[in-house]
Parts: sequence; C-alpha cells; structure tokens
Amino acid sequence: MSLHGKPIVAGAIFQSSGSTFKAFSPINTHPLEPLFENASAACIHTALTSASEAFRSYRKISNEQRASFLDAIAEEILSLGDTLLERANLETGLPLDRLTGERGRTVGQLRLFASVIREGSWADARIDSPLPARQPLPRPDLRSILVPIGPVVVFGASNFPLAFSVAGGDTASALAAGCPVIVKGHPAHPGTCELVATAITKAAQQLGIHPGVFSMVHGNTPEVGMALVSHPLCRAVGFTGSLKAGRALFDAAHQRPEPIPVFAEMSSLNPIFLLPDALRTKAAQIAEGLKNSITIGVGQFCTKPGIVFAQDGPDLQTFLTHLSHSIGSTVPGTMLHSGIRDAFEAASKQLSKIPRVQLLARAPHSPDTSKTQAIPLVLVTDSQTFERESALHEEVFGPITLIVKSASHEELLQLANGLSGQLTATVHANEPDMEHARDLFSVLEQKAGRLLLNGFPTGVEVSHAMHHGGPYPSTTHSRFTSVGAAAIQRWVRPVCFQNFTPDFLPAELRDANPTGLMRIFDGQLTRNAI
Amino acid sequence: MSLHGKPIVAGAIFQSSGSTFKAFSPINTHPLEPLFENASAACIHTALTSASEAFRSYRKISNEQRASFLDAIAEEILSLGDTLLERANLETGLPLDRLTGERGRTVGQLRLFASVIREGSWADARIDSPLPARQPLPRPDLRSILVPIGPVVVFGASNFPLAFSVAGGDTASALAAGCPVIVKGHPAHPGTCELVATAITKAAQQLGIHPGVFSMVHGNTPEVGMALVSHPLCRAVGFTGSLKAGRALFDAAHQRPEPIPVFAEMSSLNPIFLLPDALRTKAAQIAEGLKNSITIGVGQFCTKPGIVFAQDGPDLQTFLTHLSHSIGSTVPGTMLHSGIRDAFEAASKQLSKIPRVQLLARAPHSPDTSKTQAIPLVLVTDSQTFERESALHEEVFGPITLIVKSASHEELLQLANGLSGQLTATVHANEPDMEHARDLFSVLEQKAGRLLLNGFPTGVEVSHAMHHGGPYPSTTHSRFTSVGAAAIQRWVRPVCFQNFTPDFLPAELRDANPTGLMRIFDGQLTRNAI
Repeated sequence: MSLHGKPIVAGAIFQSSGSTFKAFSPINTHPLEPLFENASAACIHTALTSASEAFRSYRKISNEQRASFLDAIAEEILSLGDTLLERANLETGLPLDRLTGERGRTVGQLRLFASVIREGSWADARIDSPLPARQPLPRPDLRSILVPIGPVVVFGASNFPLAFSVAGGDTASALAAGCPVIVKGHPAHPGTCELVATAITKAAQQLGIHPGVFSMVHGNTPEVGMALVSHPLCRAVGFTGSLKAGRALFDAAHQRPEPIPVFAEMSSLNPIFLLPDALRTKAAQIAEGLKNSITIGVGQFCTKPGIVFAQDGPDLQTFLTHLSHSIGSTVPGTMLHSGIRDAFEAASKQLSKIPRVQLLARAPHSPDTSKTQAIPLVLVTDSQTFERESALHEEVFGPITLIVKSASHEELLQLANGLSGQLTATVHANEPDMEHARDLFSVLEQKAGRLLLNGFPTGVEVSHAMHHGGPYPSTTHSRFTSVGAAAIQRWVRPVCFQNFTPDFLPAELRDANPTGLMRIFDGQLTRNAI
Repeated sequence: MSLHGKPIVAGAIFQSSGSTFKAFSPINTHPLEPLFENASAACIHTALTSASEAFRSYRKISNEQRASFLDAIAEEILSLGDTLLERANLETGLPLDRLTGERGRTVGQLRLFASVIREGSWADARIDSPLPARQPLPRPDLRSILVPIGPVVVFGASNFPLAFSVAGGDTASALAAGCPVIVKGHPAHPGTCELVATAITKAAQQLGIHPGVFSMVHGNTPEVGMALVSHPLCRAVGFTGSLKAGRALFDAAHQRPEPIPVFAEMSSLNPIFLLPDALRTKAAQIAEGLKNSITIGVGQFCTKPGIVFAQDGPDLQTFLTHLSHSIGSTVPGTMLHSGIRDAFEAASKQLSKIPRVQLLARAPHSPDTSKTQAIPLVLVTDSQTFERESALHEEVFGPITLIVKSASHEELLQLANGLSGQLTATVHANEPDMEHARDLFSVLEQKAGRLLLNGFPTGVEVSHAMHHGGPYPSTTHSRFTSVGAAAIQRWVRPVCFQNFTPDFLPAELRDANPTGLMRIFDGQLTRNAI
C-alpha cells in the first residue's frame, strides 16, 4: 500500500496543500518516504466547513448507525494488517508486539464506545412531567438529553501511534457522541496516520455517512495546530502531548471571540510514596516493579513514575541497592524520535548537575544515537533540594525517575501537599503503614485523578471506571477523562425541550422509552416507559 | 435586626476591611444604612485560607450531614421572616409577593440539593471488577466517583437577590457537592446579602461544621472580584451577571498559572420565532403572552425574550396591533438600581436611533427617575437591518424587545443560523407550521440550551430536567447548568481508586453499596451489592 503524503479531507485527497516534511525512522535515523504535506489554510478551512456540513446529518443518525460506524472503523483498521504495524514500527521504533497490543486496544476502544452508545444511558436523559394544576404556576413538560457539540479537532500523541492518535480514544469518543472529527496527525508518524485515516474514510463510505465526518491533516509546525483551534467552526479540542503545546492551544482557544473547551492531557510526575513497613518487607519486589514501570516503553508513558518519596534509613538503602541492581540489568531503548531523545538527554544532564542530586544508577551500556537510544537512569536527592529546585517538579519524558529521601512521615505529607496536579499518585503500604497511608491519600486525592495502593501507575485500563485525568497541569479540565467510557462526556452538552410534542422529541425522550435507556423521571432513575 | 456592613468570614465578622460604600433604594433613590465595607486583600486571603482548611473536613462528612446543613440553611432563611423580605424589597424594589415567591424558590433549591445528595446516584459511582487471570495482563480493581474540587467563589446576581445570590443555586449546589463557598455579595443588595450570610453561618454553627465552609464579602469594585478569582486557593467560580464582567473573570481565571473553570451565565436574546399559522390563529394570545414575558420583573430576567422573528404580512400586522395595544396597557416599573436603569435608557435610545428601526409601542406614562423607573417598549425592524447592525444582537437588560420582519421562511432559517449562543429559543407553531418548526429547531438546537414549543422562556423551573445554560456568550461552559439538580456537576471531578482495600474506599464504592445508590458495575447500571 503506497502512501501519498497528502491531507485526507472529507473522504478525498486534498490537493495543493502547504510546505512538506519527511519523517525519520528512529530505528536508524533514516528519512522515510514519502514527503508529507502540511495543511494549507484552504485545506483547514475545507476540513472544518465539511465537518460542519456533515454535522447536520451525522448528529441525527441513530445510535445504532453510529455504533456500526465505529465497528466498521475497527474492522478497517484490522484489515490494514501488517502494513499498519510495520509502518508504525518504522516510524516510532515501538516493537511489533507492543504495536499489536496497541492495535487491539485501539479496536477495543472503538467497540467500547459502540457498546456505550448502543446501551444509551450515558446521554443522561431526564424527564419532568408537567404539573398543569400546580399553584401559583403550572410546571411545563421538561425533557433534557446530551447532544453533540459539533466539529472536534484532535491532536494525536507521539507515544501511542494508534491508541492516542488518528483513531484513538479522542476520535472514537467524539464520533460516538455525534461529532465530526478533524485530526491533526502527529508529524513523527505521518504514514501511520495516513493509513488509519484511510481506514476511517473507507468505513464512512461503506455506511454512507457524510464524508465530512472525518478529515486528517498533517502539520509539523505550530501554525497548523493554531489555525485549527482558531477556526470559528471548531467547537472543541482534544489533545495529548506536552505542557507547553497544550497550554498554548488552551490559551489560544480561550482568547477566541467565542472560547471553546480544550481537553488537554499534558504532564504528570505520577508520584509514588513508599511507606516504612512496605519498604522493609518488599524492597526487592517494589524495586523490580518500579524498574519495570520506569522502563516500559522506554519511559514514554504519561503515567511513568517520575518521582518516588520515601523515609530515609537502612530500609531505603536496601531498596536503593535493589533498584540500582535492577536498573543495571536494563539495556538502551529506542525512543520515539530524536527530538524526544535529545530533550531527555538534556533534561537528564540538567537534573544531574543540580547540587545534592546524585546519580543512583544507570544502565551499563552507552546509548547508540544512530538508533535514537536512551538508557534508564535513577537520581536521588533530599527533600530540601526537591522543594527548592523547580526543575525537579517538571516531567521528564523518558526512562528516568528521582528518589526523594525524607526525614519523617510529616515531611512526606508536606511533600505531598506541595505537589501540583497529577494523573496518578501511588502509595505502597503494609498493614502497619495504613494510618499513614490514609493521611497521604487524603492529601493525594486532591492532587491526582487516580490513586493506587500497592501498584504501579503505568498501564491505563480502558474501562468504565477508569479516570485518566487530573488537576492542572496534568490536564486542563480535571472534570473529564481521556481514557475509558466516560471520555464521551467531553463532546456533548445538554439541551432541554420544553412543551415538545412527541414527534419533535429525540427517541430517547419519548414516553415509551423505545431505546430502553436509564432515565431520570421526576427525579427517579428508571428504565420504565411513562 | 441591625446590620453591621462588614464581611462575614468563617463564622465571624471580619474587622479592619477596606473602603466603604452605601446601597441606595431604587424605590426612592435614598441611601440606605449602614455603610458596607469592601473586602481588603487580607480579608479575601483569610476567607480563602479558611475555606481551604474547612475543605479538609467538609469534603469528608457524610451526605446526610451535608444534606442536613442545606436543610438547616433553608430553615434559618425562613426564620429571618419579614426582616429579609423587607430589606430585599428596599434594596431591589422587587415587590414583596415576588420576593416571597423567590424565597420559596431559594429554600426549595436548598432542599432539592439535599434530596439529590441523600439519594446519591448523581456521584456517578463506577466499579470495574478485577480480572486477575486476564491475558496478557490482569485487570486491577478500579472504582471511581465524583469528589468535590475545593473552595468555590460565587458572584451573586442583582436580579434574584435570594435565588441567585448568597444562598442561591450556585452556593447550594457547591455546598451539596462538598465545596466550601466564598460569596462576593452583590453591592446593590448588600444588606440582604448580610442577612442571608448570617443564616448560613448560624446553620454551620448548629451542625458543628467548620466555619470556613462559608464566607461572604462585599465588593463594589472590580478589584474585589478579580482578587477572589486570582487567589491560588480558589478552585472554581460561579457567576451570574453581565457579559462584560463574566468575560473579564473568565479571562482572568484562564490566565492564572493554574487555570480554573468559570461557570458564568451572562447574556441571552432568547429569540422567539412566530410561524405563519400560529400568527394567523393566535395573534392576540401570543401578543398578550409576549407582553407578559417582556414586562415581568421589569424585563430583568436572563430569559426575557429580546427578539422576535416573524414573516411579514397582514397577520404580522394584526399581531403587532395587538402587541401595541398590550404594551399600551403597561405601567412604569422600578428597576433594580439606577445603573441598570441608566444602561437600559441609553441602550433603548441607541437602538431607536438606528435607521430602519422603528418604535412600535411604549407604555403611555413617563418613567419617574426618582423611583428608578423604566417603561416597556417594543421596536420593529427588517431582517437586513438586523443582520447589519451588531448592536441589535446584544442583550438589553430591561423591558424591551425587537420585532424582526422577515420576507420568507428561508430568511427565518438564515436569521436563526446567524444567531450566537442563547439560553433559550422558542417557536410558536400550529400543525400546518410543523415542517417549518422542525427545520428551525434543527438549527436552534445548536444555538440554545433550552428549546420551547408554544411557550415563553421566562420562568426557569428548578427541577431535574431543567437546563439553564447554552453556547457562548449565554454561558462560558455550555456543558453545565446553573439551575436545577444537574448544577451540582460543576463542582466535582472524578477520582479513580485502583486496588484499594474496602476501608480506604468511600462508602459509595464499597461492595455492599451501603448507601444504595445507582452504580455502573462492569458497565451495567445497578443498585445491587456486589
């Protein structure tokens, strides 16, 4: 399957677009064919205009039709077979078995959202029956339900070229909600983006859905992203990436004459607290688990633990010896692209030079820059240094973590209190640690979107109860998740229908409850007809 | 009951605050005692710090305790008796019967939120059971629920001195969610604010709730509001007021190092479309209803219809004759304060001077400025003038509406398409109009938060299915309502607990489901224990 390198807008290749760029394989730093075209202003305008046109019909098709569309996308992605996996491997350096798993996750996400909208209760249907005889004023018939907000712009992430990219969770949830999607493909894996965009386009064609429901444009400059977010027809933005880029889009979206929401997942240290008894009895086990959590995917997960807090003492020393040994057994890994690798190297050097920050361990082999490699490393410092040095509070993307030694439990609590917003926070505790664990979780609940007891934060389940979000700067909207069934809630708003005749109402709000969803009728949850 | 005029911070009168101001009675433009003190920076800092301290315990008390607190506030407000109603009447000019009704609404809101949190299902509890044998990776135990976000700053509105003020819907819903509240009282009714703040303070004392859970500060300068929104401990903002003030707070909140959400309800034209057959058969009835909807509360409702679209012709002429006659029967009314009255006068004059905008009717009596009066008026124009003149697209607060004559149904649709975001949009239609009504609603659903068929938008029911919100500029967050049970959703965020032992979990997430709420268990809604 040959790649054309052009934007795919409303079911067709968009001609006469902007400047070009090439992707490079991190495996060998060689350039990859073909040239990819940045989206021109005309291309972006066509994509948004087509999305707006498509929205008129797409928002009205049945839940079953939308669910079938999501299922068809999943099938088309699987039909790409090894072509997709091989291109993604070339562009990202991620191993084929990891990419096979990620494809399964991507397909699973699409099918999860299909099941969510087939069941229908997510839409929060509410009915207040009329009270015509009420004094002093009658109550009218009121019925409300969530409706889609319109065209959504999605920014794919580099570290999940399938699951957080063109047909990732943002796209799947927005299409499920009834919103057309324009994806800004990640320039590090543009060929993968093109392949998946083709799969979505085919699925739309098969089901006779307006082609404007989906477009994918390339952009290796900030201007493309800004033009998408600033376009008047864009109604919301989904983003996964760096704090700097996410905040820039957030600011631009809020400075529009008509501000729009930006759901950006950006930055997290994912702190881990090791309490004394756990440290005493499980030092080797926790060290091995931590090493795995730091190094999986070459540390390129948004849930990589970047900081570990523990009380100083002999048990911590034992733990550090185990961790040092574990890290010593790791090997260099190829990062997603040279920009990420260079940023990792620079940040690692910068942190290592901070007075009172020591290198605990690093993998024994030198990284091969021609293979875009990095090696895992662990730094150690004390709590005063941590509190003083703001650089130690910033996420470093890659296989690095910082151990912070604290003098007491009170100091651990103080360190927890000083944390900014996080995606996750973890406590390792045995039974004798539980009172202290409770204190810590009481603080951490205000800092993070997911709390773990005796676990590691890497590995984000795609399910109903998952929350992948958290206070700023981990995301821009702590109310919403970007992973799991609830992610659909980002792309909708309620509309209340007052005194409507049945044929004007959405099916979900008619007396008979023909789709059988759970509704709030006069304040009571029920699936009953009225 | 004598008033002291000082901020009430964490259960006590705050001494040594800032500059002072007086309120004036709009009934006779006389100054009212006492002097009120603007909040100093120290006062604001104390209020936020106390709220943050109170949050530690308040977020953990049981739903029943929080519900009892809301019920106790309702009782304390009722205990203020005529003192409250008389002061509110003096400060706002609103008649005592209207204020009695509004007090009932305010108390009803508090009790509604008490019932919502007693039932508990609003908190979106979700449980995914562990799958330890799953390949290639086990699934952990995942449980999520909504938790309060922290101290909320509420800006009271001038037009509902009870229901959208100190103990209004924002405060009631935030306290229900578990968030401490700092209210910036409206400077047009500071005595009313003080009385209600005292009631809330008493209720907190009765129930032994940390006094920092509630503070009320005065401010007749933009600086007080900005200082509250910019304070690092403020976690969210509720606002009802003008577009200018709301946008300024929204911008300030988003430019913080750590941005926070601002739920501002600001501006709406509440368009009404009159379709031909309805106009033909119900001209007199619609004219009378429209007159009532324009003039109720001297036009000072956020849902006052500010614009009416209809096809030109003999039936519209008949309707305009009826409307003119109806408006001719109205009398001057006292507005909330001279600032609002002056703005109304200025805007009415400005719009009347636009070429091709004609005065259709006005109340026959001259307004008495010493009683802060305004008189209802209706303007008429054509669709070209409306589309050209941006001033005609802005809300004028007060008893004024603009009739826009259109040449065809297609032009009506085009006018609907050109509207900005609205709280409400209404269509009057008979059976022969239904196809056209359907076309219009299809457009209006994208423009407004509440759609009405054959009704008038004034009168916002406090219920489960109500949505009082809409796309910008009607609000800053179309996803959320400021009225009704769902308003609680603004003050929470989800937290997911992974691999937690039962005693660490909130009661709502324990296997036994001791509080009996509806939960999503492995994707299925159920009240069952596990």
